[in-house]
This record gives sequence, C-alpha cells and structure tokens, in this order.
Amino acid sequence: MCTFYFGVEKIMKNEFFDLAFAEAEKAFNINEVPIGAVIVKDGKIIAKGHNIKENQRNVICHAEMLAINEASKVLNNWRLSDCDIYVTLDPCPMCASAIKQARIKNVYSALENLDKSNSEIVNRIFENSDINSATNFITNLSVEKAKNLMQSFFKNRR
Amino acid sequence: MCTFYFGVEKIMKNEFFDLAFAEAEKAFNINEVPIGAVIVKDGKIIAKGHNIKENQRNVICHAEMLAINEASKVLNNWRLSDCDIYVTLDPCPMCASAIKQARIKNVYSALENLDKSNSEIVNRIFENSDINSATNFITNLSVEKAKNLMQSFFKNRR
Repeated sequence: MCTFYFGVEKIMKNEFFDLAFAEAEKAFNINEVPIGAVIVKDGKIIAKGHNIKENQRNVICHAEMLAINEASKVLNNWRLSDCDIYVTLDPCPMCASAIKQARIKNVYSALENLDKSNSEIVNRIFENSDINSATNFITNLSVEKAKNLMQSFFKNRR
Repeated sequence: MCTFYFGVEKIMKNEFFDLAFAEAEKAFNINEVPIGAVIVKDGKIIAKGHNIKENQRNVICHAEMLAINEASKVLNNWRLSDCDIYVTLDPCPMCASAIKQARIKNVYSALENLDKSNSEIVNRIFENSDINSATNFITNLSVEKAKNLMQSFFKNRR
C-alpha cells in the first residue's frame, strides 16, 4: 500500500474517492446520513451507491449494499473478486459482511467509525479468513473531507 | 422464554418454523442452500424469504434479507420493532446486522452455525447494546429437521 500516496496511483484513488463523496452528497441533499460508495474493477467504476435508508424505509439500503447489488448485476456474478470498494465512512457490520462474502479485495475508507464496538466487529469480519481470504481494509484516507461532510449534516439537523 | 416449550406458544412457534422450513424447501428445489426465514408481528406472518443467492447471483439475496426487505415494505418502516424472525439456520453476520439494525426483537433459529468464527461475530452483533437494545437470539430449536434438510442438500450435490 506504500504506493497509495504517490504518483498515478494516488491520482486515480483520489478520483474514486471524489466520486464516492459525490454519492455521499446526493444522500446529503435528500436528508440522508451522507455516505457514498463506489466499486472499481480494472481501474473503472462499475457501480456506485448512496445511503437512502430513510427514503426507502429499509435498513438494507446503505450505500455499499446498493453498490454491491449494482456491481453483481453488471458482472452477472455474486463474486466481485478483483474489485475494490471506496467508501466515505467505514462500513457497518451488515455491509462489511456483504463486502466479505462478495470477495471484494480491498476496502478503502475515508473515515473510521467512532463506534468502537461496531468497528471491532467490522475488523473481525474482514480479518476472518476461515472461508475466504481476508479482506484488506484501510481507513482514515480522507479524514478532513469526510468529517466536514458529516459535521455539516448533523449541524443542519439540529 | 420458559413458555416456549409449552402449550399454545409452542404450537404457534412450531407453525412459524414449519413455514420457515417450507421456504427453505423452495430454495432446496432450485438448488440453493436450503435456508428459509419468516417475520412475524402480532402473531401473524408479515414476510418470508428463501435463499436465492446463486439464482440471483447476488450475495445479498439471503432468506433473511429478502424477508426484511418485504417486511419493511409491508410496514412502510425500516423499524421492525415488535417483530420476530424465524430462521432455519443461524444468520450470517450480514443478516444478523440487518436484523439488529431493523430492531427485530427475537431471533428464533432451528440450527446453530457450525462455523465458530462466524457465530462468535453473530453473537457479538446481537449482544451489542450500544445503539439499540440487544436482540434476543435463541438457537437449536429444531435441530433434527434442520440438519436433515442440510444433509440431504449437500448429499445431493456430491
């Protein structure tokens, strides 16, 4: 992962985060907790999603789940091997387990989840290599931007 | 939970399990790992689902997720408070977290998951009471029937 912060790799990954944040802003604009996700394969975005839980009245409608749903349709396969996911906040256990079961290789997250019990569970899900290989999970890659977005959302709601 | 094994309560809960097993058999008949789920509110079944992951080519399409999706539509609410779910096998972490986030009160499972790492994660998800109250999770309630179904499925596939 040392290449992440240098050269072409960095520019490419920043671009994927930009698109994940654009998704998060779509959620923000419809009064949803602003979380976005994009799934990348071979350097191309194949699916994206933003949180629409309140609008859809459905706990399943998290950004990551919608992106996984779309990517599975695009690839016509539940195996999203050789795919990476970019998320604006660490996934919850539901999304983490879906990511793991879909065999997504790398999870790049902008900001860690401050809920410690949830993040311990999520780490265990990704580290578990009993059935599939462990998922690489790297967080806090765009802390300021992600924090600002979350803070302005919760300030607006007060 | 002491009343579970006696009288009217028992008959009612057996009936819900029968319907969960009927769902599991639908999965069996289309060559899916035979898992079924029903969601009950006020003594009535409001949603059901069976595993269609392979047919839909989508890891999200577990029995429990489809039942939660349907129940949310029926109640027009992501909060499935005062609902119970009956499953023919312990949920995976994805489904457990969805059940928890939907605030389903009680999880009744026919058979424990033999994958120890997964079941530790699932227990932690249900026990976590940081945001919502803990979910009651009772397993091994119909072991023989659930084992027979799973064994005949995996025997057929060999």
